[in-house]
Amino acid sequence: MIRLFIPHDLTAGAELALDEAQSRYLAAVMRLAPGDELSVFNGRHGEWRAAVAKVGKRAVSVALTAQARPQASGSDLELVIAVVKRGRLETIVEKAAELGAARVRPVFTERTNADRVRVERLAAIATEAAEQTGRLDVPEICEPVKLEKLVAGWPEGRRLLFCDEAGDAAPALAALRGQPEGPWSILIGPEGGFSAKEREMLRALPYATPAGLGPRILRADTAAISAMTLWQAALGDWGPGEGRS
Amino acid sequence: MIRLFIPHDLTAGAELALDEAQSRYLAAVMRLAPGDELSVFNGRHGEWRAAVAKVGKRAVSVALTAQARPQASGSDLELVIAVVKRGRLETIVEKAAELGAARVRPVFTERTNADRVRVERLAAIATEAAEQTGRLDVPEICEPVKLEKLVAGWPEGRRLLFCDEAGDAAPALAALRGQPEGPWSILIGPEGGFSAKEREMLRALPYATPAGLGPRILRADTAAISAMTLWQAALGDWGPGEGRS
Repeated sequence: MIRLFIPHDLTAGAELALDEAQSRYLAAVMRLAPGDELSVFNGRHGEWRAAVAKVGKRAVSVALTAQARPQASGSDLELVIAVVKRGRLETIVEKAAELGAARVRPVFTERTNADRVRVERLAAIATEAAEQTGRLDVPEICEPVKLEKLVAGWPEGRRLLFCDEAGDAAPALAALRGQPEGPWSILIGPEGGFSAKEREMLRALPYATPAGLGPRILRADTAAISAMTLWQAALGDWGPGEGRS
Repeated sequence: MIRLFIPHDLTAGAELALDEAQSRYLAAVMRLAPGDELSVFNGRHGEWRAAVAKVGKRAVSVALTAQARPQASGSDLELVIAVVKRGRLETIVEKAAELGAARVRPVFTERTNADRVRVERLAAIATEAAEQTGRLDVPEICEPVKLEKLVAGWPEGRRLLFCDEAGDAAPALAALRGQPEGPWSILIGPEGGFSAKEREMLRALPYATPAGLGPRILRADTAAISAMTLWQAALGDWGPGEGRS
């Protein structure tokens, strides 16, 4: 079943005109005809069954039939990721969507190769991955920010899982055991690692928990996927995990 | 530090001629000169420090100086993966190397799109990833086999974590809790899922543990990385995890 993220309000009986890109996709790529079924969601009003109402090459409209799932608020999990090469960053955004992150925030660190970050392109990847993974919202892609600036404005009550491959941190799963569920960020450094100064700064933060990700060197995409997986298993919606027991 | 996997026996003082590809890499790409240091491993004799001895464009030799790490046997973790599109299969092999799998075994299932599997190409990816991740061996890439044939010849004593997204299986971390450490395989199905017949067959295997990977639909590469991560955290070398506690 095709799932589309659309901006419209979703109410019973509404007939909604899709934008040109989605219209082309349904008409020209998927070759849907009037009456064919799909699902739509907007991040606010749950998931709705819909049927194709009108088909033009660049203008397709759909009529909402019934709500299939009510909106549920996902975990407030943020992935803070040092900017890495474009292809890997795109993979990381796709995986963050699949693994239930609410937000992906690229950061510049001392050892980041400051590539340009294409926020719009990443947002499109997040949307497509959200459509395919079946979630009811789309992860937000933030404008990149410097690590020190992010830390300077850290919100009250948010915890930070700081993946520290250079250190003697406890394994991530053990580090997450018994931690509170509330809002969390996971921080993944650049492939060259954090500088000594950054590690010292991060280790001193009262809201930060350092965590190890095994004995091998991981690429940034692997580290991000593994850390999000362990967080979901321990504290998120993959439970009941040990963080809750 | 450059790390190379080489086939030679490794003994103190040996001077070893590298093959043409590795010679070109060191001479033309990395521009190493006599005396420059690197590390080598062969999967049998640990990791050795070495120094470049002779440099020709297509013929570089290295002299072993001292053993840096003794050979250690990793976990006997096998990833059994339904054949997926080439790019994703390559990613999965890279990640299996980073996450400590001993072996990757592609399988054909009912819903597999039977693409050709380039075993040699995958083995090269496994080697490169093993060099970069710092492990002392290279995961073996097996010839693809049909799922039912694999099950028919299943080795005594090997457990199977069967990732069953369609079912009501316990979450993977809970499913792994208290399980024995010995040899394990993780089975990841094709993106269309297992057929009802396959699920029934798999669920009836006495050595199989079904496991869920959260409420969202995961692509095969994400499922493979997440399952290997949870296995390493619970039973492998990312511990002490809860499987051991």
